[in-house]
Amino acid sequence: MKISELSDRSGLPVQTIKYYIREGLLPKGTATAATRAEYDGRHLHRLRLIRALREVGGLPVASVQRIVAAVDDDTVALHRLLGEAQYALGPRAEPRPEDPDWRAARQDVDAVVAELGWRVVPDAPARDLLAQAFVALRRLGLPIVLRDLRPYIEAAGLVADHEVGGLSADDDRETAVQTAIATNVLYERVLLALRRMAQENASARRFEETGALRRGSSSPARHESSAHTP
Amino acid sequence: MKISELSDRSGLPVQTIKYYIREGLLPKGTATAATRAEYDGRHLHRLRLIRALREVGGLPVASVQRIVAAVDDDTVALHRLLGEAQYALGPRAEPRPEDPDWRAARQDVDAVVAELGWRVVPDAPARDLLAQAFVALRRLGLPIVLRDLRPYIEAAGLVADHEVGGLSADDDRETAVQTAIATNVLYERVLLALRRMAQENASARRFEETGALRRGSSSPARHESSAHTP
Repeated sequence: MKISELSDRSGLPVQTIKYYIREGLLPKGTATAATRAEYDGRHLHRLRLIRALREVGGLPVASVQRIVAAVDDDTVALHRLLGEAQYALGPRAEPRPEDPDWRAARQDVDAVVAELGWRVVPDAPARDLLAQAFVALRRLGLPIVLRDLRPYIEAAGLVADHEVGGLSADDDRETAVQTAIATNVLYERVLLALRRMAQENASARRFEETGALRRGSSSPARHESSAHTP
Repeated sequence: MKISELSDRSGLPVQTIKYYIREGLLPKGTATAATRAEYDGRHLHRLRLIRALREVGGLPVASVQRIVAAVDDDTVALHRLLGEAQYALGPRAEPRPEDPDWRAARQDVDAVVAELGWRVVPDAPARDLLAQAFVALRRLGLPIVLRDLRPYIEAAGLVADHEVGGLSADDDRETAVQTAIATNVLYERVLLALRRMAQENASARRFEETGALRRGSSSPARHESSAHTP
């Protein structure tokens, strides 16, 4: 197909496609004349991956370059390829080894991961992300204790097992990365939205009078008892 | 105490405290002379709440005004007060009723909530947030099915029950809101960080050879079998 058709079918402007070719994200087409090139299904497939990384993952071009290079390098194992993609996603927390609170929090994180027996590399960005949250909670006077972490660990395991279970080693590498990025970003939002609704539901059941009222109620319904009946 | 001491103890500059008084977030001190006022523990307590809303919740002053007014209005029941605080938090999704995909997604969300029997008001922002994620997934060719939602629903219920269970109706309203905001924002990060590590762990167990390798492996370990042994 011509670049104009590739543009139509990918939903990306011709200029953007040319830019991705210049940056090495997309292979050149097969030259058919001095100013013409022919593109095929592999280009379309690659553009879908790039869109997922750029638009869903919000990744800068440099990160996309690195991931695309890993996709193309068959010596990079699937597990490591998925790691490349996940590690590129935000949010990130800067390690602050000069801060004693941060060092203590990071040690706590490493102890938790070790105790769980999770296979997570020592420099995984999520370790720093968790340490940052620990520091912020301590500074607010709400230091975390392992007991409070339990439901989060259980919840994280539940969704992660489902998500990784949905990836297939038979998929081609582009599709695997694309699915992993979309799952990571969009199901993160799914999880956050559901958590907020579940909080509202739990709060209604615990603090509101049964049935009667929703918003606009004027009775300060403060039950002493835990009317927690799911 | 004088405003300088209030500044020291709250960690906020005097100018910021004066700004919060002008904006009605913080009550005036008791005038002791033409240019002097005396502040007490209630001011300090209120400043802690404002900091949590501004710095942890990332809320604009207008949202803080609304929440503080609800804290001070005893006719606003605790459940509704917690709702005010949660609804003010980002991220938000704009409803797009003119888009048929969006309308269909929003109907799916409402059907899921109804089927779960969750007490969530019809205009809760989290419904729109979930609808937005549904639309994005469909557009990527990954439409959501109820079966895929199950682990997320279960995970959300787990953490929300724990979180709401940790709030006490005996706490004063300021402390309840402060804890709810901190919990919402910071444990959201805890959950995201743990999910990423749980994904890495699940991927390692599923796609990597047992034990041996981590990063830098050059063997494309693609198991056909599901070597999923937690």
